Amino acid sequence: MTREELFGTIKRKKSYLCVGLDTDLTKIPKHLLTTDDPLFEFNKTIIDATSDLCVAYKPNIAFYEALGAKGWESLQKTLDYIPKDIFTIADAKRGDIGNTSSLYAKAFFETYTFDSVTVAPYMGKDSVSPFLAFEEKWVILLALTSNEGAYDFQTLKVNDKQQLFQKVLEKSQEWGSAEQLMYVVGATKAQALEDIRKIIPQHFLLVPGVGAQGGSLEEVSKYGMNSHCGLLVNSSRGIIYASNDHSFGDAARKAAQSIQQQMEGYLEKYLK
Amino acid sequence: MTREELFGTIKRKKSYLCVGLDTDLTKIPKHLLTTDDPLFEFNKTIIDATSDLCVAYKPNIAFYEALGAKGWESLQKTLDYIPKDIFTIADAKRGDIGNTSSLYAKAFFETYTFDSVTVAPYMGKDSVSPFLAFEEKWVILLALTSNEGAYDFQTLKVNDKQQLFQKVLEKSQEWGSAEQLMYVVGATKAQALEDIRKIIPQHFLLVPGVGAQGGSLEEVSKYGMNSHCGLLVNSSRGIIYASNDHSFGDAARKAAQSIQQQMEGYLEKYLK
Repeated sequence: MTREELFGTIKRKKSYLCVGLDTDLTKIPKHLLTTDDPLFEFNKTIIDATSDLCVAYKPNIAFYEALGAKGWESLQKTLDYIPKDIFTIADAKRGDIGNTSSLYAKAFFETYTFDSVTVAPYMGKDSVSPFLAFEEKWVILLALTSNEGAYDFQTLKVNDKQQLFQKVLEKSQEWGSAEQLMYVVGATKAQALEDIRKIIPQHFLLVPGVGAQGGSLEEVSKYGMNSHCGLLVNSSRGIIYASNDHSFGDAARKAAQSIQQQMEGYLEKYLK
Repeated sequence: MTREELFGTIKRKKSYLCVGLDTDLTKIPKHLLTTDDPLFEFNKTIIDATSDLCVAYKPNIAFYEALGAKGWESLQKTLDYIPKDIFTIADAKRGDIGNTSSLYAKAFFETYTFDSVTVAPYMGKDSVSPFLAFEEKWVILLALTSNEGAYDFQTLKVNDKQQLFQKVLEKSQEWGSAEQLMYVVGATKAQALEDIRKIIPQHFLLVPGVGAQGGSLEEVSKYGMNSHCGLLVNSSRGIIYASNDHSFGDAARKAAQSIQQQMEGYLEKYLK
């Protein structure tokens, strides 16, 4: 999917919502556990309930991988079920030496036909570049994450002038364009977005941390939005676990609708 | 497996060799491709040929993941086939926010019963700690990797005094002990090992990059060995692809034997 196509979908749906499919057997409604494939049954209902309100789905790969081969089958079925105009993100945080990253890229872009995959920057250029070799596929590089541990290394001052995540933003622009690179910036660090936009005015950002983790959607939108919207704001638990009974699809829809309506307002207010 | 047990195996086998199972369908002997599970058939022969010469096996998870559910089945069969006294490493380079890292830990330590998993440090403490909650299981944290991209971020000077990878070594010691934490240090950076040993005298190091990537086994042994050996030196391609015909098992054995014999000498010379 191209950047223009993604922006087109955002304008049409008046939404930049990404729904995180962190589907956990211990949290989904109990009546699903007797079905053949509970993970997929749950995701199917969530997708039916929210696909007109969001522009991206982000399966969190750990939740599928933890179930072994069966989990990967549920993931494949989920991916096949997502409507084709919706951007898909493998939240996998991969990254290894070149020949290994090539295989991760093959896994997520060919074996599973995701539009994008999240990648960790620690191993540098040759761990990221193999993902960028795929046309109309995206790397979403970790920059400033939403968790407490972000302060352990990401915000350290490097070379006596900038923080490590800023160096990651700056350096990685030599590796790919705004048509193939996005960045993860946590909503819990909304004020940093203003400075981040000085380094990467054009790129899309994947923003986790609104909702359960406490980030503000309005602040993210105010400081992060650019001329192409430039934001995919993720909500996982707040939507998919809005209810735990037979009505969980309806509850997820209501939660997604509430966010979409706020986003419609922020698009009018902050789109540059 | 405890550190003492691992050291015991090293002394008994006079070896600190780790064989990397980077098993690639395009590189294994063609006659295996007609079998039901070529990846496992290949690994089985390699394990039969080398298990008395090495102390660890390291499946590179990307190579299995790229094949979808079928690849994970091959991985499970491989893991079941490895003799129980041999240390197993899931070379997966995972790491995510806490609840997600918990699931990756569950995937590799419970669904698949690996002894250890490689983890990327970029997201900090709460991305690593969940892996450390499992008894007698190990985190092998990326410090200074063997690839060219290591120079993009890992060697940047942070807080005006040390390089990022040194900060990772220092900081992460607050999270776990030498009984549960190892570090990845590339053999191509052997001279750095002397300084690294000043920061972490006790920890085991997983050292890739000997052979195909050009690192020297003697230098690694000279600068890296401690009183528990403290080294697992990995060779992948040099052993498993030593030959490409029906005799690939014999060729792998010869390659592993040659390394083991060198290691026997270095253990006499450099064990402190």
